[in-house]
Amino acid sequence: MNQQAPNKEITSKSITRREDDYSQWYNDLVIKGGLADYSAVRGCMVIRPYGFAIWEKMQSALDKMFKDTGHSNAYFPLFIPKSFLSREAAHVEGFAKECAVVTHYRLKTSADGKEVVVDPEAKLEEELIVRPTSETIIWNSYKSWIRSYRDLPILINQWANIVRWEMRTRLFLRTTEFLWQEGHTAHATRDEAMEEATKMLHVYAQFAEEWMGVPVIKGVKSANERFAGAEETFCIEALVQDGKAIQAGTSHFLGQNFARAFDVTFTNKENQVDFVWATSWGVSTRLIGTLIMAHSDDNGLVLPPKLAPIQVVIVPIAKNEEQLKLIDEKALLIKSSLEAKGITVKYDNDDKQKPGWKFAEYEMKGIPIRIAIGPRDLQNNSVEVARRDTLSKSIVSLDGLSETVAGLLEEIQQNIYARALAFREQHITPVDSYDQFKKLLDEKGGFMSAHWDGTTETELAIKEETKATIRCIPLNNPNEEGKCIYSGKPSKQRVLFARAY
Amino acid sequence: MNQQAPNKEITSKSITRREDDYSQWYNDLVIKGGLADYSAVRGCMVIRPYGFAIWEKMQSALDKMFKDTGHSNAYFPLFIPKSFLSREAAHVEGFAKECAVVTHYRLKTSADGKEVVVDPEAKLEEELIVRPTSETIIWNSYKSWIRSYRDLPILINQWANIVRWEMRTRLFLRTTEFLWQEGHTAHATRDEAMEEATKMLHVYAQFAEEWMGVPVIKGVKSANERFAGAEETFCIEALVQDGKAIQAGTSHFLGQNFARAFDVTFTNKENQVDFVWATSWGVSTRLIGTLIMAHSDDNGLVLPPKLAPIQVVIVPIAKNEEQLKLIDEKALLIKSSLEAKGITVKYDNDDKQKPGWKFAEYEMKGIPIRIAIGPRDLQNNSVEVARRDTLSKSIVSLDGLSETVAGLLEEIQQNIYARALAFREQHITPVDSYDQFKKLLDEKGGFMSAHWDGTTETELAIKEETKATIRCIPLNNPNEEGKCIYSGKPSKQRVLFARAY
Repeated sequence: MNQQAPNKEITSKSITRREDDYSQWYNDLVIKGGLADYSAVRGCMVIRPYGFAIWEKMQSALDKMFKDTGHSNAYFPLFIPKSFLSREAAHVEGFAKECAVVTHYRLKTSADGKEVVVDPEAKLEEELIVRPTSETIIWNSYKSWIRSYRDLPILINQWANIVRWEMRTRLFLRTTEFLWQEGHTAHATRDEAMEEATKMLHVYAQFAEEWMGVPVIKGVKSANERFAGAEETFCIEALVQDGKAIQAGTSHFLGQNFARAFDVTFTNKENQVDFVWATSWGVSTRLIGTLIMAHSDDNGLVLPPKLAPIQVVIVPIAKNEEQLKLIDEKALLIKSSLEAKGITVKYDNDDKQKPGWKFAEYEMKGIPIRIAIGPRDLQNNSVEVARRDTLSKSIVSLDGLSETVAGLLEEIQQNIYARALAFREQHITPVDSYDQFKKLLDEKGGFMSAHWDGTTETELAIKEETKATIRCIPLNNPNEEGKCIYSGKPSKQRVLFARAY
Repeated sequence: MNQQAPNKEITSKSITRREDDYSQWYNDLVIKGGLADYSAVRGCMVIRPYGFAIWEKMQSALDKMFKDTGHSNAYFPLFIPKSFLSREAAHVEGFAKECAVVTHYRLKTSADGKEVVVDPEAKLEEELIVRPTSETIIWNSYKSWIRSYRDLPILINQWANIVRWEMRTRLFLRTTEFLWQEGHTAHATRDEAMEEATKMLHVYAQFAEEWMGVPVIKGVKSANERFAGAEETFCIEALVQDGKAIQAGTSHFLGQNFARAFDVTFTNKENQVDFVWATSWGVSTRLIGTLIMAHSDDNGLVLPPKLAPIQVVIVPIAKNEEQLKLIDEKALLIKSSLEAKGITVKYDNDDKQKPGWKFAEYEMKGIPIRIAIGPRDLQNNSVEVARRDTLSKSIVSLDGLSETVAGLLEEIQQNIYARALAFREQHITPVDSYDQFKKLLDEKGGFMSAHWDGTTETELAIKEETKATIRCIPLNNPNEEGKCIYSGKPSKQRVLFARAY
């Protein structure tokens, strides 16, 4: 048989192994997998077509979930007047330190005619901030849209680019500019706003688990980790293979903070004037980084079938033109029958590359299923089917192949999730002393479930000493009497600590 | 019968008539139709959900056309280092005058603690320009992606926001920030790049005509109107009801200009090193402005069914609860049968508004078909169907209603196009003297088809004196000996002049 396990010798691109350098492994996957590239602008990335195709699949699934829950899309300005940021005290504190500031609106040719320089005549009266998030500019619009309870709720989402001047960046996980969606809703009552904030948290969790195959813990942030301007921040927290946590999405109950800041009032059913209640919620291209880190291996990306731009690749194994012609015919039939089932298929009969090279290349790209067809397969009415998640191969009859493949894609989706879930479950460790906490954090990683006295002081001390932060207080967290691992003070529940991206 | 022609007295929002103030009529449609709103940032607009839903439909249709012609989406940084702009001489000349410049990356609290101010310590070494178009940042990436002819062509599109510091803005048609798509392709030969540029021009024309119902003239720009950095700019030009032209889309053959500027070379099949050939092409949210101006009337928007967020609205006409209940039942059946045909339907049984108010409201919103159902209709197994394009009404049997409506939507789509085409055809006027040119430009408007001596000098003089510009030299323009209307010098063809948005 020609079908051999991929030989790393013939791979065009070698990947650093996870155990040698996890960080470099990740970068190799992103760059060599063709997902993204560095750019000429500090901290900004280029999302290449293969990476962007994953984002398009994420967007499409999320957008449908948002619309199914009653939201509409809209678009608000990129720029925020500087003074708007200051209107909400906590908000400006959180975002003023890391923003891009537009001060001028024109360039001109320099005196020596050799370059262009900022035209000092074109200075803005008030500087504009490139949005680090859009609460302020949006609530300024809501002010003119809301008069009465009849104008509520407003359920708006926008897909946009965002800029936060990060000092240390990492492709997809933390970049100066990133793509995201931000929902901004306005409600007549506290309860309704709180219900919205938790509803969207559940939408995010469902997306992470069912589409990305990434189990997440739903929880609430401690005061210190709260969004700047929120009364409560809900989050989904994922765990990746090096034992670090990733905040994958957040949903904020904003109370009446932004309504107060922008003077957005409404007349309620009882004909009384009140401030409007708000939520905001967002997920970003950081989800792609989470996806990569959660599932991939030393051979490359492992993509869940539901988000894989190409779900099945077919590779012919032919020794000569005549064989290739026969295989082409069969492969195109298989391709059509799979496409009829809504499966995305690539047939790669490019003769400039050897099958072994292609096998390695498509493993690198994380394509869930590879079908190889050689002359013997034609005789036997079969093909070789290889799974990316387990790297296992089997000979499968052509009869009913499309059903087999459709079922297998579903199985891979489930298996990826189950594997990540098992890993996550193994990495939630109850700890009862600070020594044990520090030891396990270094040796095992993952979430440390520990008693905490509820103070920011303790939280910051632990962060300073161990780099671990409180990722969340899980929803429906059981009450349990105990003592704070750090201060020894009484505590009523365990919270989850971890080092995080 | 309760079904009466909409009474303007009961309309919640009155619209300025076109003949009274065309510009105000347009603004009324945009604002009162709920398409967009002004924002707190000079020249930047908020695209509201109804307007954004039109953009989503445009995006979806265009995106499919781009993918069907082999393109993939990607995403490049929002910011462009200032020095990049200067690399291509014509490009910087065209864009440096109207750009937003980021000079700092941090704010800080002022000395008096009362506000935030730009932190002078956080000055960028090199200023960043908010992209006015992305050729430079993209070709800087292409440099590292292209080595050999095997890496070509690169066929990439991005959906993005763009900033050009416009002094005079108009909702959708000219805003400081706007949304668009920009295709950027790289090719091994001049012919292939030229073929790409014209292919995308045809894609744009097809979209404008088949989806927007807006006939366009395909042509090439004069040197003076060319994109800054292009060797040839192709365009589609639309005409709207006040006789002004709108440039609705452009496709540029960039030659090797950007490859030279960013030193992007490749090894061709003959093993020689050459510069890469380029195109770029874009359409923007300006298309929404074009759509509105092309078809709408004094009652409000007229939307082509293919781009209407809601294609059919059903309004019950009931005198009491009991009647409403019976109508509800029937209306929901109709809604399902229409939706089964892929038609988007809204059933508005909100009892807080009268039917007359609703009729006027949905006329304002441009919903192509309105179905009204009263108690008598139930008895007669019929409904009243009103067309937005002609404002005509007819009684239609419930038997086969969904087929009737589907056919009618198609008919409306065709009729809107035919009407705009007839208007356009009546407004291309051959003129043979400058006096006639000026007179007809004022009195009739539209395109003046006139001889021109081919010089920028003449073009600019005519623009200065009449505000008319050369919109394009139509593709496949017939040769015709004549004399320039301005200079009297010999000319070999007529070109199209118009005043334009």
